[in-house]
Amino acid sequence: LLSLCQKGFRQFLSQKGVLLLFESESSTYTYLLADTNTKEAVIIDPVLETIDRDLKLIKELGLSLTVAVNTHCHADHITSTGLMKQRVAGLKSAISKFSGATADIHLTEGDNIPFGRHSLTVKETPGHTDGCITLVTGDQSMAFTGDALLIRGCGRTDFQQGCAKKLYHSVHEKIFTLPDECLIYPAHDYLGQTVSTVGEERKYNPRLTKSMEEFVEIMNNLNLPKPKKIGMKDSVQSHSAQCKLARQKLSSLQHGNCLNASRN
Amino acid sequence: LLSLCQKGFRQFLSQKGVLLLFESESSTYTYLLADTNTKEAVIIDPVLETIDRDLKLIKELGLSLTVAVNTHCHADHITSTGLMKQRVAGLKSAISKFSGATADIHLTEGDNIPFGRHSLTVKETPGHTDGCITLVTGDQSMAFTGDALLIRGCGRTDFQQGCAKKLYHSVHEKIFTLPDECLIYPAHDYLGQTVSTVGEERKYNPRLTKSMEEFVEIMNNLNLPKPKKIGMKDSVQSHSAQCKLARQKLSSLQHGNCLNASRN
Repeated sequence: LLSLCQKGFRQFLSQKGVLLLFESESSTYTYLLADTNTKEAVIIDPVLETIDRDLKLIKELGLSLTVAVNTHCHADHITSTGLMKQRVAGLKSAISKFSGATADIHLTEGDNIPFGRHSLTVKETPGHTDGCITLVTGDQSMAFTGDALLIRGCGRTDFQQGCAKKLYHSVHEKIFTLPDECLIYPAHDYLGQTVSTVGEERKYNPRLTKSMEEFVEIMNNLNLPKPKKIGMKDSVQSHSAQCKLARQKLSSLQHGNCLNASRN
Repeated sequence: LLSLCQKGFRQFLSQKGVLLLFESESSTYTYLLADTNTKEAVIIDPVLETIDRDLKLIKELGLSLTVAVNTHCHADHITSTGLMKQRVAGLKSAISKFSGATADIHLTEGDNIPFGRHSLTVKETPGHTDGCITLVTGDQSMAFTGDALLIRGCGRTDFQQGCAKKLYHSVHEKIFTLPDECLIYPAHDYLGQTVSTVGEERKYNPRLTKSMEEFVEIMNNLNLPKPKKIGMKDSVQSHSAQCKLARQKLSSLQHGNCLNASRN
């Protein structure tokens, strides 16, 4: 089975089954994954600003978008999931049960998101937020880590339900236990890097190669300002993948002008 | 042999043999290609601003960088090829013979740039500049098109040795004759798109699906300002992949503030 999956995914890659798209204001990566035979597709972390680009591409590629999934409640950009549901018949939104957000599908550990012959498996990786998930392909060749693990970095842990200890355990137990060659596709990058591997991050991540105590010390002393979109309440954010808990916690925040994760 | 190459490249892709890197000021993509067994590597279109990031990554991945190649003389950014040669022992620079630029290797049609078991084949694709080349992998699964073909666009033809007719023929004869599933990796993108295919561009490129006459009409009426870095003469640009012809032609230009290719 593994061999079959690997073969499937190689064909998949070479036929452009995985597409990386970038939104520059929030330095967000959106991923479009498709079964190149059945044309069923899943989109990960779509951004409001780029909804027209994304839907145009999906149409041109003849894909049938079945699920739009957010790896977590994003504080640094507004998801396009809600608006996408209005524009794509039958599209379902998905997010972690522990995000506190409304969605058609509430995901928990081990859940599968199928698209044609392929699927993504949910791993709960809290720490940046309680509802952070990592999505792993069936052959463990690719992991979409959201803000849990970034290339040579990680998401911050000082707002929403952030907890450095939780994040450390999530990454070490759920991501660093994947095969060394598993590709890491994060939700953001601020240096123009697009992909890493489990092996590289296990070896070179400047934070997560430290002991848990050192990691907590680093994360508690980042002194970053708040993300600028964290307090926004517009109709789109309210529509679907809305962060109730985050909004409650942050209702007293007046402003902020920053990124969701530090740059080193 | 083809089958062997394809197998090689699939392994190559899945083991991160091709790495896409982004420089945001000039929206440039830099590509790092490596044989994951022998560790020999080639870099395509490296940018001065990101030389430290690129060399750090090459070191971390344990790669031996043998050739730094420019797809053409870039008017919108300064190549890091010259400085890279100073910092990487044995590194050779390469560019088209028709670029008018100095380099260790002057490339012409059909030349090969080997790296381990793999190689890139040179296709001359003039039109944006006289010295534009497209680099194609041995199995024709990937083409690095520089500014000749962009995703749903192409390089402008109104400065340097630009010629819309030449560009039309280059794309139709040298790129659109590649297999439909061949991945297109351009030198730039301004909408956050990262990869296309020959099939897609043959079908959806808004300019190159037109007749040659219509294409020339479109290209002659873009009315774009000049790229801001086109007149720069610093020690790095002078060192290696320097555009003599372009500099002669453009010595009278005082300024400019633009991109190398239009955004639609």
